[in-house]
This record gives sequence, C-alpha cells and structure tokens, in this order.
Amino acid sequence: MAFQKQLPKKSVDLSAWYNALVLQAELADYGPAKGTMIFRSYGYAIWEVIQSELNKEIKRRGVENAYFPLFIPENLLHKEKEHVKGFSPELAVVTIGGGEMLQEPLVVRPTSETIMYDTFARWIQSWRDLPLQINQWNNVVRWEKRTYLFLRTTEFLWQEGHTAHAEHDEALATVSWAMETYTNLYRNLFALPGYVGRKSESEKFAGADMTLTYETMMPEGKALQSCTSHDLGQNFAKSFDIQFQAKDGSRQFAWQTSWGLSTRSIGGLIMAHGDDKGLRLPPKLAPIQVVILPVRVEDEIVIVCKAIAASLEKLGYRIKLDIEENQSIGWKMNKWELKGVPLRIEIGNKEIERGVATLVRRDTDEKIQAQIDDVAEKVSELLEDIQKNLFTQAEAFLKNSTHEVARWEDFKMYMEGEKGFLKSFWCGRTDCEARIKEQTKATTRCLAEENVKGKCVCCDQESFEKWYFAQAY
Amino acid sequence: MAFQKQLPKKSVDLSAWYNALVLQAELADYGPAKGTMIFRSYGYAIWEVIQSELNKEIKRRGVENAYFPLFIPENLLHKEKEHVKGFSPELAVVTIGGGEMLQEPLVVRPTSETIMYDTFARWIQSWRDLPLQINQWNNVVRWEKRTYLFLRTTEFLWQEGHTAHAEHDEALATVSWAMETYTNLYRNLFALPGYVGRKSESEKFAGADMTLTYETMMPEGKALQSCTSHDLGQNFAKSFDIQFQAKDGSRQFAWQTSWGLSTRSIGGLIMAHGDDKGLRLPPKLAPIQVVILPVRVEDEIVIVCKAIAASLEKLGYRIKLDIEENQSIGWKMNKWELKGVPLRIEIGNKEIERGVATLVRRDTDEKIQAQIDDVAEKVSELLEDIQKNLFTQAEAFLKNSTHEVARWEDFKMYMEGEKGFLKSFWCGRTDCEARIKEQTKATTRCLAEENVKGKCVCCDQESFEKWYFAQAY
Repeated sequence: MAFQKQLPKKSVDLSAWYNALVLQAELADYGPAKGTMIFRSYGYAIWEVIQSELNKEIKRRGVENAYFPLFIPENLLHKEKEHVKGFSPELAVVTIGGGEMLQEPLVVRPTSETIMYDTFARWIQSWRDLPLQINQWNNVVRWEKRTYLFLRTTEFLWQEGHTAHAEHDEALATVSWAMETYTNLYRNLFALPGYVGRKSESEKFAGADMTLTYETMMPEGKALQSCTSHDLGQNFAKSFDIQFQAKDGSRQFAWQTSWGLSTRSIGGLIMAHGDDKGLRLPPKLAPIQVVILPVRVEDEIVIVCKAIAASLEKLGYRIKLDIEENQSIGWKMNKWELKGVPLRIEIGNKEIERGVATLVRRDTDEKIQAQIDDVAEKVSELLEDIQKNLFTQAEAFLKNSTHEVARWEDFKMYMEGEKGFLKSFWCGRTDCEARIKEQTKATTRCLAEENVKGKCVCCDQESFEKWYFAQAY
Repeated sequence: MAFQKQLPKKSVDLSAWYNALVLQAELADYGPAKGTMIFRSYGYAIWEVIQSELNKEIKRRGVENAYFPLFIPENLLHKEKEHVKGFSPELAVVTIGGGEMLQEPLVVRPTSETIMYDTFARWIQSWRDLPLQINQWNNVVRWEKRTYLFLRTTEFLWQEGHTAHAEHDEALATVSWAMETYTNLYRNLFALPGYVGRKSESEKFAGADMTLTYETMMPEGKALQSCTSHDLGQNFAKSFDIQFQAKDGSRQFAWQTSWGLSTRSIGGLIMAHGDDKGLRLPPKLAPIQVVILPVRVEDEIVIVCKAIAASLEKLGYRIKLDIEENQSIGWKMNKWELKGVPLRIEIGNKEIERGVATLVRRDTDEKIQAQIDDVAEKVSELLEDIQKNLFTQAEAFLKNSTHEVARWEDFKMYMEGEKGFLKSFWCGRTDCEARIKEQTKATTRCLAEENVKGKCVCCDQESFEKWYFAQAY
C-alpha cells in the first residue's frame, strides 16, 4: 500500500517530502485536469474541522451564510477597474452552454465581489438594510499552470465574507475582527504563529484600499500568505452603485469589506508541523485525535481497546480503533505516524497484566504509561500539551527565521542563503520595492513597525516604517 | 420593504404565488447570469439543516466526505456512452483558461461519476480497498434556459454519494439504504410523503442499470422527482477499468452506486406546504422554529420575552426574538407568517398581568395560552404537533391526488384536468410510454406494483405491473 513507501527526508528535499507525504497520507491526489486536485477524505476532514470552528465565530458575529452563483457575466467583472486588472490573467471562461456559443462569456468566479455587489446594490436601499453581512463557503477558480497540492491549485475551497456598512469605522472594525478571528484560529487551532499587518500598495487585494494579511514561515524560508482581510472603502460601492439613504436623508455610498481563508491553509499546516516520519497534526484540528492499537488483534485485548475507545468517544474525542487483522502492529504504527495522529494508545498482554495503557506522543515519541482508569485524564493532559508544544516549536522557528537587517548586502546575503523573514526599513516607494523583488525575489509581506525612523535597506533614504520581506509561495 | 407586498393567491396562480413567495420571504433571488439563482441566507439556512441531518446518516454508514474537481476533461465524460448521451445537451464548457484557448475543453461537472471513477480506477486494486464509499457536498451545473427558482436552475447544490463494492448484493443494499435514508428525511423532516420505486428504462439515470426515485406531488398536480439512487452495475467500472483482485485471486470489475439529493428539495418543500399567507415550514427544518414578539417594544415586556427566548435556546430550539422598534406588531406578524416560522409567541401587557404567553400556530392559526412556566413544555408539544399536522395534510393531498385508472379515456381526461398521479397498468414497452407522453405529457414516474395482472392503459395488451404516471417539473 502506498503509505508504506519510503518518505523522502524533509530536511533533504522539502518539495519531494511534501508531495510524497500529501499523497501517501491520503490527504489529496492530483485531479485529471491540469492544475486541479482531489481533496481525499482525510484531508477534507481537516477542512471540516476548520469550517466548523470558523463557522461558529462567523455566526456569533451575526454574519449569515448564503450562496451566490459560480458564473459571473464578463461585464460585471469589468466594472471595478483595479479588480479586473488583478484577476484577468487567471480566469477560466465558459463560452459554450447547452450546446451553443454564449453571447456573453461567463467567468468562473475567482472571488465573488463583483457578482455579490451587483446584487447588494438592489438589496441595499436604506440605512435600515445595513450592515449587510454575508459569508459563503464555496469553490473558486484561479488558473495555475504548475500545481502544488493545497498551496497552488486552479480550484480551491474557501470561505469569503462580504459586508457592507453605513460607516467606515464600522467597516474597519469588521476588517480587524476578521483578522483577529483568523489569528486566533491559526494560533490556537493550527498552532501556527505568524505576522499580522498591512500589505503594501502593490501587494494589496485588487480593488481594496487596504489589506491585512497573516504571514507564516515555511521550512525552506519562504513566507506563506495564510489569509487576508480587506477594507474595500467605497471603491466597489461606486462601481456598482451601492447607495443607501442615510438617517439624515442624504444618499451615501456603502463601506465594504471582504475576507477569506482557504484550503491553502492546510498546505501550510502540513509544511510547518510535518517531520521525517510524516504529518504531525495539532490535536484541535486532527480528524483523529487518538488512535488505539491492540498489539495483537485478539479478543481479550480488543475488548479492553473497545472499552477505552468508547469511554474517550463519550467525552467527545475523535477516536480511531484500528483492529484491522491483515496488518502488523509495526505497519499500523508507521501508518498512523505518517497520518499525524497526535496520540497513540497501545494495549498488549503486558499492559493488560498490569492494568495499564501505553500512550505514545506523535510530537516527541515519548511513551507514557497510565492506569486504565486514568487514561481519559491523561489523554486530556497530553493532547493539550502536544497542542502547546507544536505551537512552541513553530514559534521558535518563526523567531529564528526572522532577522533584523539594516544593510543591503546583508539583505541580499540572507535571500541567497537561509532566507526567512527580513525585518528592514523601507522608504515606501514602489520602485525600491520593485528593485528588491528583482534582485532578491523577496516581496514586502506586511508592515512590521510604524512611527520609527531609519534608512531604507535598499536606497538609504529616510524611512519611517519597518516591513517584513520574504520570498513567497 | 419587499415582504409586505401583496402575495398572489396560491389557489389562483401557483407560479406567480411561488415566485413572489420565494423572493419576498428572502429565500432566494435571481442571479445576473441567465438560469442562475442566489441562495439567500434564510433559504441557505434550510439547506444547512438538511445538510446537518443527512450528514449524520451518511457518516453513520461509514461513507466519508471528500471533494473532487469542478472541471472534467471532455474525454473522460465521453467514456461511458449512455452517460454522455444523457448529459451532452446540458453542459457548460470552459474553453479559455489563463488567457489562452485550452487544447482540451473542460466541462463544468453536471454530476461527478466520470471524474471520480477515473480516480477510483487508480485507488481500487484489491478487495481490501473495497468498499470505497465517498460523498461530496458541492455545486453542479446543468444548462437551463428557463429558470424556476430552486426547482430548475443552471447551477444547484447537492450531495452526491458514490460507492464501489466487491459484490452486487452489497451495492444493491447501498442503493436501498440511500433511498431509505432519503425517505426518512422526506417523511420525518420535510413532512412530505411520496412514492418510492424504480424508474423505467427510458427515465433511469444515464449510465445506470436501475434507478430508484422518490416522487412527490405538487399543488398543480405535477410530480417532482425529489431524489434518486442508482445501481450503476459494472457499466462505469468497465468504461473506466475499475478492476480489483478478489479474495480468490481473480480480477473483477467493481459494482457501483451513486445517489443524490439537491436544493431542488427546498422548492418542493415551499410548494407543498405554503399557503396564501406564505411559507409553512416544518419545525424540524425551520431555521427559526419559534419567533418571540413583544406586542409593544417596552422594557418590561422585552425582559419577559428575553427570559423566554433564553430558556428555549437553552433547550436547543432555534429562536428569533424580534425587538425591532421601527415595525408594528402587525407588520411583524405578517413578516414571520410569510417566512413560515412554525410557532409565534406574543407577549403584551395583558399576558404579563396574567403571567401567561400567547402561542400562535402557523399551520392552523390557533391561539393557545400557556402559563409562562409551562411555555417550554407547550412549545415542545406544539412543534411536534405542527410537524405531524403538516405531514397529515400532505399525506391526504397525496392520496386525493392519486387515481387508479384503467381506461385510456379516463387517463387522458385526468391529464387534461386535475392531473395528479395516475396508477395504471403499463405493458412496459417503450413505444407505449412514448405515446402516453406525446398525448398527455405524462411520463412514468416509478413502478407502483409488481406481479399483478391486467391490461395496459394505453394499448390494452396484457401487463404485469402498475406504474405511477404524472406530468413532471
């Protein structure tokens, strides 16, 4: 079976390791059309956990789920000029429908601003209709020639939130709320710390006034843009004529936001926490939190395993009891390590004689023995500790991958070598940003510090902001 | 606001009533591209309840959720000849990607058999890989020129289950399980009885050996195909070369099933239960089960309303407390009746003086007074009774709409008049079926009785089966 193939070493060839791991752990597979991928049930189950947790926060905020069409008439996409400029190169276009050439081609949504806001203009008439707060979980398409499973695919899954407000302040509060929600999700569930900040003018979302981003660091020193939240100002409102009658009777344009988190996040999760033996899933996102393995599949042992499984399931844990008879215990251990299950419980004759269970941590390989009666308590404690430990490791990695750099020579040296996040003064001019990108492949990832004073790492001119730079996926 | 417009009468103009209701109750709206619709949050919330209930059953069966790509390379679609013949007229085709003409056009999935089974052929090697049981919740596209909100749209949402088995019996058991699960869902949640049976050769799914269907009756005497479950035999397995090594070492083709339920079901729900005042949602599917209205929005009254809302929410009911200040109680009553909330609780000064609440049933308009302390118990009892009552009404309607017809003249008379389900002997020949359709617009909906003996309603030849006939959406 596929998963018992040799896994390339993470430290030796990250890409080979990543692709092999995704396939062997049965997280995903390649689709038949170029650029597409199949989310296999184990990978999709991670997405279901993410959906469930994020949905709670979205609903708590009063944002309602809805569903807008997949197909956008081309003319709508062209209404906001910056937006269409940004997305044009990546579009998939339907030109034939029901056997006939279409008079107006339909774009497969790369994101839903244009199709939603055309309708928002009809729904929003008065201040009483605001705020309008809608989220959708759907599939979007952005043409890609080279596939990188989860990280870069023509089609991906995401949620996109879209809100319209009477006041700019309220819109800004929503932009911040979305990014705070994502930050909590990444830190507390993904165990993945990152930098939060504003994007530069050239890197912000096409059509936005301001974009907030969450940037994480991957093992080869490249940054991953992990989600974004946009202040759209009144740009789309003006293009789509979203006007409302304010309390004072005047006609005003709505203030809008959009924000999204995609299945790309699962790619980051795999990259960040995996090791040479396979995945390491943080307990809070793991579809299987504890796997229970009888050392031999014999009645006496299986009965004990089943009892433990039942008691843990009752407490709400996501449990897998593996009593497959055709696989050895060694094979199973490899399999569940590859699949990144945080905690393994082994029960054999030795355990039964002594009334104990052996618990094995995926993150540290540590073996812990617990009295059968204390297993539930121990599981709770260990899962919590594994979640923390993965975060601590990722935090140390982020810190070690971040360097304050003042001199251009050092900047270039890092980008040719170990890479990572470079925190440097930047004058804010687009031509400096372009020169940095050209010479080092590094782009501005997000603002790091404001109201400071120094010299631009590239041009030496006076600067008042430090930015994070990195090469990116 | 839209929802206080006059609603056309259901009994006078069903189509006008239906369209106005869907728009005014904010269940859905038209999308900008022809044939598309927007699922508004209230309509989508019904879908979320359906998803949540059906997902439980799907997972309990051991079927796992996954996600396959939207785009199907044209050559894959052509592999199963009956399948492509059935779907060709309704395809949307992407011919441009990333600014370039594609060498091979991509079909936007109308259903996922072909894209999934191409991959199944890789995944399935041995009997150990079986059964393979996968479900996906996604969007599919079938080109339509005339939109009928929910009932007929170019894009719709659904779940599609796909399984592969080593034995035909096991596949058949899955086909039956899926239809039983749908039947329970329709009867217990939708409160919508219907006829279950096999489709005729000409009406079965393109590529299937046998299709089971659930057929419900709509107010104008037309049938709605409400979901289907297919025995695919080895047809796709042979086209896609899905072979496995059996326990005895031989190579065999897998036996496959597919089964789906779509957002079309929401259209049936609206049609079947709605009345001249608007929607009537069965409590088990209602996004809001109880709306609580203070007769006047005054502190003393609102406090009591909030306490009742909190106590009901704690018990798990889906509650809306409407304390909007700018709308009269009459306006609100109309609004929530239109939106079909099963139960309304009114609290005014009169109620507070007497320590009671007034409960109003949406299905019967009946007003019930209950002591504040007994509200929870009364709510439980009434919701259950409303659920039952809607089913009883729908069951009586189905019965009254079904007629045993032996003579061809009567058959034609019914189809020109009140329509409904006609239960008649049919010889089973395709030319008789075609003639019936041509002369009466009625098609075979499903098998009604087997192993009986009589004369075909159309050709008088000896027949051994009774079938349900109806005009259909």
